[in-house]
Amino acid sequence: MSVDQIVSQQQQIISQLINTWKTQSQAIGTFLDKYENDAYLNEIAAGRNRAVYVFGHIVSASDDMLPLLGFGDRLHPELQELFSANPDKFFPEIPAVAELKSYWKVINEKLAAEFLGLSPGDWLDRHTRVSVEDFAKDPARNKLNVLVSRTNHISYHLGQLNLLNIKK
Amino acid sequence: MSVDQIVSQQQQIISQLINTWKTQSQAIGTFLDKYENDAYLNEIAAGRNRAVYVFGHIVSASDDMLPLLGFGDRLHPELQELFSANPDKFFPEIPAVAELKSYWKVINEKLAAEFLGLSPGDWLDRHTRVSVEDFAKDPARNKLNVLVSRTNHISYHLGQLNLLNIKK
Repeated sequence: MSVDQIVSQQQQIISQLINTWKTQSQAIGTFLDKYENDAYLNEIAAGRNRAVYVFGHIVSASDDMLPLLGFGDRLHPELQELFSANPDKFFPEIPAVAELKSYWKVINEKLAAEFLGLSPGDWLDRHTRVSVEDFAKDPARNKLNVLVSRTNHISYHLGQLNLLNIKK
Repeated sequence: MSVDQIVSQQQQIISQLINTWKTQSQAIGTFLDKYENDAYLNEIAAGRNRAVYVFGHIVSASDDMLPLLGFGDRLHPELQELFSANPDKFFPEIPAVAELKSYWKVINEKLAAEFLGLSPGDWLDRHTRVSVEDFAKDPARNKLNVLVSRTNHISYHLGQLNLLNIKK
């Protein structure tokens, strides 16, 4: 097999992984189009997180991918305290579903655009929260791993969101 | 970059994806070690699937990877009707949690062993449920995509299982 063929295979693998991330993100979008925005103020199950919180948590995790992958600062640093560092109902007020939806759209567009600028070698390079020394010990702590694990993180919470039971 | 370096990168990517699958599967195992087996007869949320059914569904999906990836027949073809083709509570009796755990262990060991036998080229080859013609139109319908999407499928249901609320 020629170098070109192997490079092309490698690019295919990475573009498949980006597509899986997109597909899971789109499934969240589909879920959010299912009901009126107020429906997402309900808990996904009795005594559990509200759907709006779970969604905010996903938006926060995606926003966090920007600094983690070296694409710049978070667009909405306030989401960290609201949806990542603290549990649901810790703050009396959180952003509305419509607001989170608009953040989510811009964050995903920025991520998708930045992804296109990374070569396979860049994807296998360390993410910004691992030191050179630690990365040398475990080369799997790379940017591709961030993409894959954050995709699974979306799937994890999508499974929970889909339990939301609203009578239309 | 030399051919050897690119091939080694490719192998690294694939082994990372296999490891992500293993990590998600292990997280299911950790969840199943949390309570006594009888606890998993409870619903994950009021009126929703029982944990034992969700687990059986994951075992069935993993067993199905054997024929889908060309590794041979399902080890437990009966799981298809019980946990994939029909909803929870459709059958008055389903296998016990302990039984499903033992199936799951053997299936995962077989999958992990078979994975080691695939080259990067094999991973990018079509899975057994897509025709040569359809695969030519969409080369992403390959074995690697099965691995990645089934890993996300495990994460999806893991998120649901972790809602199970048992007072110890």
